[in-house]
Amino acid sequence: MSRDTNDRHDQQDRSFRLDAAEAAALDAHWRAANYLSAGQIYLMDNPLLKEPLRPHHVKPRLLGHWGTSPGLNLVHTHLNRLIRAHDLDAICVWGPGHGGPAVVANAWLDGSYTDTYPDVTRDEPGMARLFKQFSFPGGIPSHVAPETPGSIHEGGELGYSLAHAYGAAFDNPDLLVACVIGDGEAETGPLAGSWHSNKFLDPVHDGAVLPILHLNGYKIANPALLARLPESELDDLLRGYGHYPLHVSGEKPAEVHRELAWAMESALERITAIQQAARREGATHRPRWPVIVLRTPKGWTGPAEVDGVRVEGTWRSHQIPLAAARDNPEHLRLLEEWLRSYRPEELFGADGGPVDGVLAHVPAGTRRLGANPRANGGTLLRALPVPPLADHAVEVDAPGGTRHEPTEVLGGLLEQLVEATAERRDFRLVGPDETASNRLQAVYGATDKAWDAETLPVDEHLARGGRVMEVLSEHLCQGWLEGYLLTGRHGLFASYEAFVHIVDSMANQHIKWLRTSRRLPWRRPVASLTYLLTSHVWRQDHNGFSHQDPGFVDHVLNKSPEVVRVYLPPDTNTLLTVADHVLRSRDYVNVVVAGKQPCFDWLGLEEARAHCARGAGIWEWAGSESADREPDVVLACAGDVPTQEVVAAADLLRRHLPDLAVRVVNVVDIARLMPPGVHPHGLSDHDYDALFTRDRPVIFAYHGYPWLIHRLTYRRANHADLHVRGYMEEGTTTTPFDMVVRNDLDRYRLVMDVIDRVPGLAVRAARVRQLMADTRGRHDRWIREHGRDLPEVEDWSWGARG
Amino acid sequence: MSRDTNDRHDQQDRSFRLDAAEAAALDAHWRAANYLSAGQIYLMDNPLLKEPLRPHHVKPRLLGHWGTSPGLNLVHTHLNRLIRAHDLDAICVWGPGHGGPAVVANAWLDGSYTDTYPDVTRDEPGMARLFKQFSFPGGIPSHVAPETPGSIHEGGELGYSLAHAYGAAFDNPDLLVACVIGDGEAETGPLAGSWHSNKFLDPVHDGAVLPILHLNGYKIANPALLARLPESELDDLLRGYGHYPLHVSGEKPAEVHRELAWAMESALERITAIQQAARREGATHRPRWPVIVLRTPKGWTGPAEVDGVRVEGTWRSHQIPLAAARDNPEHLRLLEEWLRSYRPEELFGADGGPVDGVLAHVPAGTRRLGANPRANGGTLLRALPVPPLADHAVEVDAPGGTRHEPTEVLGGLLEQLVEATAERRDFRLVGPDETASNRLQAVYGATDKAWDAETLPVDEHLARGGRVMEVLSEHLCQGWLEGYLLTGRHGLFASYEAFVHIVDSMANQHIKWLRTSRRLPWRRPVASLTYLLTSHVWRQDHNGFSHQDPGFVDHVLNKSPEVVRVYLPPDTNTLLTVADHVLRSRDYVNVVVAGKQPCFDWLGLEEARAHCARGAGIWEWAGSESADREPDVVLACAGDVPTQEVVAAADLLRRHLPDLAVRVVNVVDIARLMPPGVHPHGLSDHDYDALFTRDRPVIFAYHGYPWLIHRLTYRRANHADLHVRGYMEEGTTTTPFDMVVRNDLDRYRLVMDVIDRVPGLAVRAARVRQLMADTRGRHDRWIREHGRDLPEVEDWSWGARG
Repeated sequence: MSRDTNDRHDQQDRSFRLDAAEAAALDAHWRAANYLSAGQIYLMDNPLLKEPLRPHHVKPRLLGHWGTSPGLNLVHTHLNRLIRAHDLDAICVWGPGHGGPAVVANAWLDGSYTDTYPDVTRDEPGMARLFKQFSFPGGIPSHVAPETPGSIHEGGELGYSLAHAYGAAFDNPDLLVACVIGDGEAETGPLAGSWHSNKFLDPVHDGAVLPILHLNGYKIANPALLARLPESELDDLLRGYGHYPLHVSGEKPAEVHRELAWAMESALERITAIQQAARREGATHRPRWPVIVLRTPKGWTGPAEVDGVRVEGTWRSHQIPLAAARDNPEHLRLLEEWLRSYRPEELFGADGGPVDGVLAHVPAGTRRLGANPRANGGTLLRALPVPPLADHAVEVDAPGGTRHEPTEVLGGLLEQLVEATAERRDFRLVGPDETASNRLQAVYGATDKAWDAETLPVDEHLARGGRVMEVLSEHLCQGWLEGYLLTGRHGLFASYEAFVHIVDSMANQHIKWLRTSRRLPWRRPVASLTYLLTSHVWRQDHNGFSHQDPGFVDHVLNKSPEVVRVYLPPDTNTLLTVADHVLRSRDYVNVVVAGKQPCFDWLGLEEARAHCARGAGIWEWAGSESADREPDVVLACAGDVPTQEVVAAADLLRRHLPDLAVRVVNVVDIARLMPPGVHPHGLSDHDYDALFTRDRPVIFAYHGYPWLIHRLTYRRANHADLHVRGYMEEGTTTTPFDMVVRNDLDRYRLVMDVIDRVPGLAVRAARVRQLMADTRGRHDRWIREHGRDLPEVEDWSWGARG
Repeated sequence: MSRDTNDRHDQQDRSFRLDAAEAAALDAHWRAANYLSAGQIYLMDNPLLKEPLRPHHVKPRLLGHWGTSPGLNLVHTHLNRLIRAHDLDAICVWGPGHGGPAVVANAWLDGSYTDTYPDVTRDEPGMARLFKQFSFPGGIPSHVAPETPGSIHEGGELGYSLAHAYGAAFDNPDLLVACVIGDGEAETGPLAGSWHSNKFLDPVHDGAVLPILHLNGYKIANPALLARLPESELDDLLRGYGHYPLHVSGEKPAEVHRELAWAMESALERITAIQQAARREGATHRPRWPVIVLRTPKGWTGPAEVDGVRVEGTWRSHQIPLAAARDNPEHLRLLEEWLRSYRPEELFGADGGPVDGVLAHVPAGTRRLGANPRANGGTLLRALPVPPLADHAVEVDAPGGTRHEPTEVLGGLLEQLVEATAERRDFRLVGPDETASNRLQAVYGATDKAWDAETLPVDEHLARGGRVMEVLSEHLCQGWLEGYLLTGRHGLFASYEAFVHIVDSMANQHIKWLRTSRRLPWRRPVASLTYLLTSHVWRQDHNGFSHQDPGFVDHVLNKSPEVVRVYLPPDTNTLLTVADHVLRSRDYVNVVVAGKQPCFDWLGLEEARAHCARGAGIWEWAGSESADREPDVVLACAGDVPTQEVVAAADLLRRHLPDLAVRVVNVVDIARLMPPGVHPHGLSDHDYDALFTRDRPVIFAYHGYPWLIHRLTYRRANHADLHVRGYMEEGTTTTPFDMVVRNDLDRYRLVMDVIDRVPGLAVRAARVRQLMADTRGRHDRWIREHGRDLPEVEDWSWGARG
């Protein structure tokens, strides 16, 4: 890999020149967009200022963000020109998503807003509606949101724009993804880490990302860090990130139009050259992609000074520069002056629609940023060719007779899936440096790991075109995958269970996005985002307490039930069955918790299919009830380790208390426990009672925090007699069985629970109870001496119970 | 601010020379540490290899991480030298915390391990114990952890080392904080963002951070990104981060010792010069602090090749290079050869303790990295001078007669607290660019915002020595504060409620740290980490759905109850009272949810104190029960907005159904609802029933997700008749009252709930119920037309109810 020939001291090409007519048209478009942005924030009537501005024209509650809007409008205006001039297939990710008015204004100007929402016409009544609806009850949100045509990014939380942009670009070789990064957002960790995404971009199979770092100097209340670095230091930083910076700064619109047009042309030229070198000439060095640094004042063209203090160019323009426009006549006067400074009468015709001059550089049809189908990915989605499960299922002659590593077997299925999409290139597997650690390494039979940095002879499975994405950043994994899915492709995120909490907030935001999108008929369903959580709490042998946290399930189950699905397959074939289902699903966030360690095979493929279709069911072979009587107790389980402990407990009970009727219930789809009115997967009370009884004690061994089961079942008939065991935050580096003992989830404790809870059993089974307690004590002494589990635990199997 | 005079092309000073005896002693120490690291991973007996190595000397389960250990040992060895040579007050943050064996080995060598754990003596029996306990049941965890003397950082999750290091350095002017950053960790977003912490470090009042970027080339399974950048590009990156890089690379120990000793001397010289320039000469430019880049092979000095594949210098040495040492004779032979390559007979004396030559450069007493009191911050902690609440409390003549912005009043208290600690400098307020947005701006009366980048005349409240930390990164806020608290100081993290989820995983890890520390008698209690969550779900007027998430409370309540406390003060004086309590507390994670919008004042200071001491109580003035009868219904509430709605609902009930006996219960301390055996704050059943009754319907209006209340109360007598309203993920940009209507938490809905739930009321109150339903319908039409809430809602107050 050679260093790019353009080094820091070369003379940047400034040959591109904007002519006067072009510049005037761009400026007119920019002014129109600025007018429409300010109008959305302030006005509920008199949209074209045909009459003098009056208090009642102004909204009673002024909500929104002006500060970033002029910059976004400027970028949009110039992207329009670039797209039209070169007939580009392009989308844009708007990092400062609080600049909602800007993106909406531009979509209205290019007609895509009206295409999407026909009642918001491109004329005076439509403009009035456009203005009033913004941040108004029953209207549209203040941010760029799912409601915004052309967007795949909300930008409310800040931090993920660049990762989303890369996700959109992967496997879209003809696409240009512009990405505006606010200087506030640039301070976040996830964004800072995202710059290195360029080492994962393949110039042959992927499209291009053009980051536009917008330095407008301030956040809500403070200067932005990157805006206060000397230009040479910022230049070093961006070069250190592997980019080629193009700097544009100014406060005079005419100059900035000229410079920005030049920068965009230069960037495109450079991108084209990189792609041609890679695609036609087979160049293999990592290219130095361009980045544009755009320095313009915050709240540019807005009120310069209000109430005696500077506003334009400062943090004070972040939200509402004139906060009292309805009540304070001076503010109202300044507002009118500000709005009229754009000369709306030149920009909009008699009917209120934009005049031709404003639209001179606006592209048409699906080239418009508000209408590119990539940004409504469901319209492009193809069903995934999930391989037949029978090719990968394990043979199960009898429950518990064999063991497999569930994720290792799933790896085989994923290999075939990756192979089947080799031409289509619409499936990616992402994970934080853990694909092999999570036992999915079979996929390397079909593809490599995406990598466009230096390689050494000892390296394995690294290649530019690989479709496994590994980077030690859950934020990047999540951000890339979101961008990939929202542009109409498929994928899977495999993660250590504990550390998926790193992206709790991103998962929130994606669930919110999907929840809202599902309510918008024009947004077509996209592939679900599926988490495979493995290397889970019960088997963190190398790592211990810091790696033990099963709470992501609790986190997502707080969110919109129409979006969230959670599965805990107890063995290999159930994992395959669940995988088949989630890979075909749409518009969900699926959480699948599955182990990577050898796990007993309980169900054959057809049994697994039937069990997963039910989501929860009785395992008659594991229990000891007979058809003619109700069980004395229900042993329920969810998760692979709890299932093993419950089956082992049932085994102990059968041997020690053979006349006790034990029912074993396994739950795969955790939402089955919820009431049907709360979650669409919820079992009816009748079906729930048929599994759990209405009046027998239920001992429930759950994979995660035990109170989750209570929160899901508190309205069920038998809840008062439901006793849940789970993870209680007791952990360290210890043996697998000691982990369940420490958290009172082990087979011996479960037997003791049964004895304690079944009426009348305590006396009769006192000896058995003591035996269980003694075994736990023996375990404790044994592991401290031998460092491994009791032989009777290590050697136990259901199949060998005789 | 001028660019540092040392530019990239200068000749780095290489005048420092290590003499041969020094080099030999350093190498001996390094070999000893490497021997002890490998010994911990593998051996359970025969620690000094006095007899040939046999399978039964090897642990049955080999768990741990060798790969990073030699690098950590090298850094520790050289830090020892630097500290001793210059009598430095220094600690080290070990980012690759999975290298637990290394840090433990060094602490054993310098004697601090034995000081902490007297049974692990510095002789052969102690070495045997040291080896066996590592990653062994009943022993110590595999990572650097609270159990490790000298550590303030676990490094299990990866990403936070540099932020912790800066947190430790703030307000510790004489402290040097070395920080080893692994190249895997360096890929994470939080770490990538942390580099800019140097713009917040004051060379006058703060100590120095010396980052040591350790490039050993690989993560678990992949090359590390930064290790695969050309050196010039990495150099650009670090300069772009504002640092002065010192590069050390090699595979030959003698050369690397020489170079690393030089780099550490150079770095220290540079740090000293910066501090002197700032402190003696008043230099005000932002300095360019040094960073050391250390490139050495992963698993250095371990087995070069195993089973025919390269191991040393590759990812294969990440955990256990010889995985079958107990069962495979060839692995056993290689292990013995590897261990003997360190020549233990030269390093350890007859008694098994390290010989003098090994300890030649090891510092003494509290200068030892394993014994510096800064890393056991509770030993240095001073009680915080929390101002008298009476100075800030608001007057309340009657409940609901006035309104205040609770956080704004709290700001006044914090101002006084900041003022009171002006000399001590042991309190900081951190927040993501939101101090003013969260209405805490009064603090700027006493201090400024820490800022060491460029300033402009228009800027306000920026200064190098400021003790408010604002950066648009929750990760940095949290990491800085953790480092600050763990080194014995105090602080507060104020955040938008929704976005604190960004640090869910960091909060997890900190709770785990505190939980474990509390069980170690030698770790002294540190100040609690308190979150003030404001700008909450119900008042996100400018932002909408993406900013609405009250789930952090659910997240932390899954964690160790001995650590976690959650408070929802309903008004200004209760917020002050809660603040007073949490600021004085130790070893907790406190979550305080409080609004910033004008909120009715319900309680005077003394009432607030009494109410907060109880944690939950009956508000007789708001209800309509009489002393001689049980109430017909309980209206319970937690959180400021739900409290307002409940009091308003009680008001409606009093007016419309005057003979109904309504009890109003407010809950401040949410853990009061939990059973006493589960959380130390849990109310006894007797006390719970005295508030909530055993048999009357309870309508509970809760600030967050409603099922949280169920999960806390499912064992309570009256649970079947508890009905909770809360946030149901229904939100957008709308009016404040519409937010509660959308989530069925509004006063009219609560009245309807009462009518529906009180036996026999439905028929009698049918007219009232219809009136409530009609009002909700009227609300819906009104806001869509007027963009603001119904006058009867906007104008409502309890005080005016007449």
